[in-house]
Amino acid sequence: MTTVTARDTETSISSEFDRAIALRPAGGGRYDGELGAGWRIGGGINGGLLLAVAANALSLELPEHPDPVSISCYYLSACVPGPATVRTEIVRRGRSLSTGTASLYQDGPDGTPVERLRVLASFGDLATHDGEVLTSATALQLPPVEQCIGVEHAPASFVQQAALLERLDLRLDPATVGWALGQPSKEGRIQGWFRLADGREPDPLALLLVADALPPATFDLGMPGWAPTVELTVHLRAKPAPGWLRVGHATRNLAGGYFEEDAEIWDSAGRLVAQSRQLARVPRG
Amino acid sequence: MTTVTARDTETSISSEFDRAIALRPAGGGRYDGELGAGWRIGGGINGGLLLAVAANALSLELPEHPDPVSISCYYLSACVPGPATVRTEIVRRGRSLSTGTASLYQDGPDGTPVERLRVLASFGDLATHDGEVLTSATALQLPPVEQCIGVEHAPASFVQQAALLERLDLRLDPATVGWALGQPSKEGRIQGWFRLADGREPDPLALLLVADALPPATFDLGMPGWAPTVELTVHLRAKPAPGWLRVGHATRNLAGGYFEEDAEIWDSAGRLVAQSRQLARVPRG
Repeated sequence: MTTVTARDTETSISSEFDRAIALRPAGGGRYDGELGAGWRIGGGINGGLLLAVAANALSLELPEHPDPVSISCYYLSACVPGPATVRTEIVRRGRSLSTGTASLYQDGPDGTPVERLRVLASFGDLATHDGEVLTSATALQLPPVEQCIGVEHAPASFVQQAALLERLDLRLDPATVGWALGQPSKEGRIQGWFRLADGREPDPLALLLVADALPPATFDLGMPGWAPTVELTVHLRAKPAPGWLRVGHATRNLAGGYFEEDAEIWDSAGRLVAQSRQLARVPRG
Repeated sequence: MTTVTARDTETSISSEFDRAIALRPAGGGRYDGELGAGWRIGGGINGGLLLAVAANALSLELPEHPDPVSISCYYLSACVPGPATVRTEIVRRGRSLSTGTASLYQDGPDGTPVERLRVLASFGDLATHDGEVLTSATALQLPPVEQCIGVEHAPASFVQQAALLERLDLRLDPATVGWALGQPSKEGRIQGWFRLADGREPDPLALLLVADALPPATFDLGMPGWAPTVELTVHLRAKPAPGWLRVGHATRNLAGGYFEEDAEIWDSAGRLVAQSRQLARVPRG
């Protein structure tokens, strides 16, 4: 059986990310894949990677609208490394956007499928969007990459739980990593440079990973521990240029056991290529 | 047949909003309602009202989790006044949150049902959320209600298209209504006081209306015309206290024919009760 992704129909896929999101069509809008242990974080698989897997299935179902333009994911239960199935349903095929759903399942202990997440999204073709930009957003200001902090400086207890970090080349702004030294800024803000460790260039599906790849903003509020995502919506605003991405996460309001986390992603050409917001649970303990 | 809402099982419902979202259970997770002409705006029915209708169906299906905590809506085609059906599916029933989908249909010209919108949401019980708040968000600063601008000052061409405005008591900050006089600030920001015209107090379902009730932020960029919503996600962060709400809309990035619009809603007790973001199409012409 041939393994395909939206962008690569070769059976040998050189990029870790493309291998991670690769799917085999099983007919009727169903796709089979494998969640790699290398994308683990805390007690599950990184939510951005899972979103990219589900999005890849919709992209394969919608060849004329291959890019997520707006995509919302509700996380139901933690994934484990191993086989996964994505079932898609196209809700509406339109001229500029098509809308569909995707559900990612894994077999539970008794062999019955358990739904891990549900996606609802509108897909389009970002290459056809006009080039008009009117923005008051200013690009994230970061020190040069070489002055930022790589994972090699992170606490071992953090890295041990996060095989994911080996897939990423993440260089955090020293001004937003005080939490790693027990001195969180309490601003609820973490930002840095991002690229995939194996050098694969960013594209719209990879931006879904990036939107959920930084440590939770609650680290910077002095709350260590993983923050399970309830819902994550990503708006893709342009195709990213090759090179380093700048990513910032921030939260403003923690209340009633939940907090929101807004992310923005800027490409090497200085464009705001994605905005995301998630609602997550406040880490316990 | 008895008309019920999540909060009112009387057959005579005094509030316009409660009547607008009222649904008759038809079995199997299906609910029938009627979209009132009084909620029209531009070429359709207000998207926030439609979201409240769909949310009401999920609330009725989930008596232990009556409140939307995070709700995402993808708009597929414009609604018209008249009958509508909401079909719900519960995806997962959990301890603190349950997740479901809702689809709103109306019959097309040939009598076949046309899906108008699809909702994916997690519901909980906001009354059970703990009272902890840690926030760096500051409440919207507005002049006193009596110094703000009611609909009576809006251009007739605007009001004629918007029966919705008669349902709302909306008082806009004079600093953000220059667009009504041909002098948009170009900041992409509109804010004001909000309550329902008939005095019904706010609750979580009403906040869904509020999240999409102000004129689009693009008015303040000098772009008149309606901006169709592609996707709207609302996070409900607390139950609102009675009284006036403060609402602000803002956009930062218009690109490739789309813009994002963030809204926040503050209650009379000074709490940030809802945050929303939508992706909308830039108005044409």
